[in-house]
Amino acid sequence: MRFAVIAGCLLLSGASFAQGWQALPEVAPHPPDNPPDEAKVALGKQLFFDPRFSSTGTVSCNSCHNVMAGGDDSRTTSMGVHGLTGPRNAPTVWNAAFHSVQFWDGRAKTLEDQAKGPVVAGVEMGMSSLEAAIERVRQIPGYVAQFGAVFGGEQPVTIDNAAKAVAAYERTLITPNSPFDRYVNGDDSALTEQQVRGMQTFQTLGCVACHRGPAFNGPTMPDGQGFYISFPFHDSPYVEKYGLRDEDGRFAVSGNPDDKHKYRVPTLRNIALTAPYFHNGRVKTLAEAVRVMAPSQLHKTLSDQQVSDVVAFLESLTGEFPEQTMPRLPTTPGRSIVADTPH
Amino acid sequence: MRFAVIAGCLLLSGASFAQGWQALPEVAPHPPDNPPDEAKVALGKQLFFDPRFSSTGTVSCNSCHNVMAGGDDSRTTSMGVHGLTGPRNAPTVWNAAFHSVQFWDGRAKTLEDQAKGPVVAGVEMGMSSLEAAIERVRQIPGYVAQFGAVFGGEQPVTIDNAAKAVAAYERTLITPNSPFDRYVNGDDSALTEQQVRGMQTFQTLGCVACHRGPAFNGPTMPDGQGFYISFPFHDSPYVEKYGLRDEDGRFAVSGNPDDKHKYRVPTLRNIALTAPYFHNGRVKTLAEAVRVMAPSQLHKTLSDQQVSDVVAFLESLTGEFPEQTMPRLPTTPGRSIVADTPH
Repeated sequence: MRFAVIAGCLLLSGASFAQGWQALPEVAPHPPDNPPDEAKVALGKQLFFDPRFSSTGTVSCNSCHNVMAGGDDSRTTSMGVHGLTGPRNAPTVWNAAFHSVQFWDGRAKTLEDQAKGPVVAGVEMGMSSLEAAIERVRQIPGYVAQFGAVFGGEQPVTIDNAAKAVAAYERTLITPNSPFDRYVNGDDSALTEQQVRGMQTFQTLGCVACHRGPAFNGPTMPDGQGFYISFPFHDSPYVEKYGLRDEDGRFAVSGNPDDKHKYRVPTLRNIALTAPYFHNGRVKTLAEAVRVMAPSQLHKTLSDQQVSDVVAFLESLTGEFPEQTMPRLPTTPGRSIVADTPH
Repeated sequence: MRFAVIAGCLLLSGASFAQGWQALPEVAPHPPDNPPDEAKVALGKQLFFDPRFSSTGTVSCNSCHNVMAGGDDSRTTSMGVHGLTGPRNAPTVWNAAFHSVQFWDGRAKTLEDQAKGPVVAGVEMGMSSLEAAIERVRQIPGYVAQFGAVFGGEQPVTIDNAAKAVAAYERTLITPNSPFDRYVNGDDSALTEQQVRGMQTFQTLGCVACHRGPAFNGPTMPDGQGFYISFPFHDSPYVEKYGLRDEDGRFAVSGNPDDKHKYRVPTLRNIALTAPYFHNGRVKTLAEAVRVMAPSQLHKTLSDQQVSDVVAFLESLTGEFPEQTMPRLPTTPGRSIVADTPH
């Protein structure tokens, strides 16, 4: 592992600190009450891909968090049932297991909690209640048998168990062995010269103050506690141009005025695959995102060369996506639970 | 192979004809100008799953023809971009390769032709033109390289080549080895007693007049020529109850008055997985579909026992779905072709 001393951390009171570049682990941590196993992960994958738990039968977790792509949806903000759109850009599900809190505003402490949110969001999956969603699951004999085998108990098909299965699947969505990771692990040929230069620029500029750790999303935090940063931290013409302060960020969740315009620091893993950028998705390219970040967070302006170098470095964070088999979705022979219920 | 003589073919002038129950082939026929190969099928699978070729970036072929399920969408009629819905129930893509024409009204002669339709249908994928769709493909370097490797030539990324790739993938979507197929191939234990009874009922009632051949969709037809039948053929209270004559069927395509309310005979393969039923999707259960068919096509009324037996037989037509790996969708690093274009 390579180590480097990083100075110029603007956001942490100018303190110097030692930082090691860290490769992405191949296994994610899991909560003690939700250990992974093969059957649970398989069930979670089925639920993740199953659109029948949206009101219209058209939206699954994978609709906005497409694991065949960057784990998001390529859109400015996501589109759910009935063509409705929400206010925020979909965060990637790849490596979400390395976040200590979920959603842009950290309003879910765990992947398990997060999994329940979109199901009942009117502009996402649009179910009237979690109970209505789980009632659909209960009508599918194959799922009932699988929940029983995985979770046991008299009534294994519960919202919490469904969330546990989905979260267990999501913890398998890890992309190790990016060029950056191979470089950090000693393969000097893994990065181009420009990428190495971009890596140094990323460090000396101070980007690493927030984007550090194996997922480039901040220091190790206790589970359920977020690493939140004001965005934008400094004024610039970009604030108006891209509406960067058009919403309240974490303040809307916590009610704490200190949280105004604060967001969880997102991972930079696979960032080249998740355009457009930022909480409102209004910045269309990675190069422009880098240009915006420098004055907004570091009070700096980058040369075109610096932007280009940092983008090249960020492209080295695209990892290897594990091959996955498609799930088979269990059936309700001779009828459809979607067509049966009004929506 | 078991053979049976079938009488009582009401629709074919009462003629008797010899019919063999036929197992589903494991390989589908293909047009001479589109032989399958591994790279082409892989490309077709990527395109089939890629939502970026819809105006909103949310709808792929798989959205309405979900191969993880019955090859359809569980909905009465499909929902495309912006939550818009069309007039017809999505036919399954599984075993579509065994149809001599495509769509309910047979307006596409081949899978290649069919693949182009939904891309520019306003209520489906909603692209302004096929050219606009292929222009998006051309912006994705990974696809450009794959089209070149598969099709060669100076400008390999064309609408026709994209359609060929998708069709080549769809020809791999075959579900052999259903209980029915195993029974036909000599395994007496593959069907239950009730299913065997239902099979006999299906034959003696005359359902086989139209639903015959290995895909239960009619006699072998020359490619591009459809086997069309009036639906409903006879009057019954179901006509009004389910709006069975609310649209013109093939007449809207051909302009031939003889084609009014005619439809391509759909396959019955995996019919238990594709509720709701009929061209307008208004009949919710397989049992009700069987009940409707008897007076509508055969001028008969079935007992509850007959309905139940025929449904049991139809459930034996659910085949084995091949395990598939998920495609990886190639990227446009640092930007999104969906967010880049207005929709």
